Amino acid sequence: MRLYNYWRSSASWRVRIALAWKKVPYEYRAVHLVKEGGEQYRPEYKAMNPASQVPLLELDDGRTIAQSMAIVEYLEERYPTPSLLAGDAWRRARIRQLAEVVNSGIQPFQNMPATLGYVKDVLKGDETAWVRHFVTRGLGFLEKTAVETAGTFLVGDEPTLADVFMVPQLYAARRFSVPVEPFSTLLRIEAACNDLPAFAEAHPDRQPDAPRP
Amino acid sequence: MRLYNYWRSSASWRVRIALAWKKVPYEYRAVHLVKEGGEQYRPEYKAMNPASQVPLLELDDGRTIAQSMAIVEYLEERYPTPSLLAGDAWRRARIRQLAEVVNSGIQPFQNMPATLGYVKDVLKGDETAWVRHFVTRGLGFLEKTAVETAGTFLVGDEPTLADVFMVPQLYAARRFSVPVEPFSTLLRIEAACNDLPAFAEAHPDRQPDAPRP
Repeated sequence: MRLYNYWRSSASWRVRIALAWKKVPYEYRAVHLVKEGGEQYRPEYKAMNPASQVPLLELDDGRTIAQSMAIVEYLEERYPTPSLLAGDAWRRARIRQLAEVVNSGIQPFQNMPATLGYVKDVLKGDETAWVRHFVTRGLGFLEKTAVETAGTFLVGDEPTLADVFMVPQLYAARRFSVPVEPFSTLLRIEAACNDLPAFAEAHPDRQPDAPRP
Repeated sequence: MRLYNYWRSSASWRVRIALAWKKVPYEYRAVHLVKEGGEQYRPEYKAMNPASQVPLLELDDGRTIAQSMAIVEYLEERYPTPSLLAGDAWRRARIRQLAEVVNSGIQPFQNMPATLGYVKDVLKGDETAWVRHFVTRGLGFLEKTAVETAGTFLVGDEPTLADVFMVPQLYAARRFSVPVEPFSTLLRIEAACNDLPAFAEAHPDRQPDAPRP
């Protein structure tokens, strides 16, 4: 399988964690979102994903899957062990709920260039204030909802898709200088995740397209 | 089960379609998003969903699930027949991908009051132009991606979660006066969906909290 992705994209990082957690080998294909106007807009990439977004998973037979949530659900179905979505139907639902707080409730608002470009260039607005508003709000929802199920991780004592979505979101929050100290439950769980090799290996700084120091 | 929802909310409508398709009985609990500053902000509702959003599914034992994607996945697991997510792992992935183009790629940008309120009140921007930009863009991605799998419905010849997410999105597009004529594949499929009793029953106008003509 080939993963088209970008080192610093939070949605790409989610998929890399899931692949590492399940020890699924894959070929890393870098799509530089900034260089030369954005490689995601090249015709050959748009032919695979009309939305010009990463990540995109290309299977061995050439079929593709876009949207990080769809990709991680696919990985969970094809490689069920070790699971990132274990438990009864309600627990699985709550894992997905927490992941969606990030996926549809936060990330779209920090998307670059689609969202932040419009805020800055068309509306002449303060895109930094915009990001801080929506990221702070979303992390607050996540913190309050997590209290009900949190153990060592967001839902119980094993990592789940909820954690896979949260860790890259906290990294993005810091990039945008969002104060994260108020989210003590999330920070405690993030530290537990960072101790796991799968999360560490998938970190942006360790990817082949990350700038060398 | 009780569904906390609002007649005109597109995310609420998605869940109503899934419930109707699977013929699952439920109690309709209206949460008026505008009246008295928004019933979703009442303390008793925030205790169930800190994000103050609809829909919310409350199970018989009092446990809750928020986020429409998490709810419909739960319904699919608990009531697998008739399915809205049938097929092999790739087909299921593509269904979820198309649903996410709406869920995380369009709807967050038209969310009222969180998104449109900020655009209008804080940025003093044209919220109508904003909505048209993001909805047109997202429907374009959906149309182009659908071509690969479309039959009578978005993925093959039976309705799936992809259609469940698309139909309320087209309704929302018209509310915001977005021209939908360019999306001929989507419109053809929408007409097929509207012929199905489950989609018709779940329509906003047929809900108990819809304004009487």
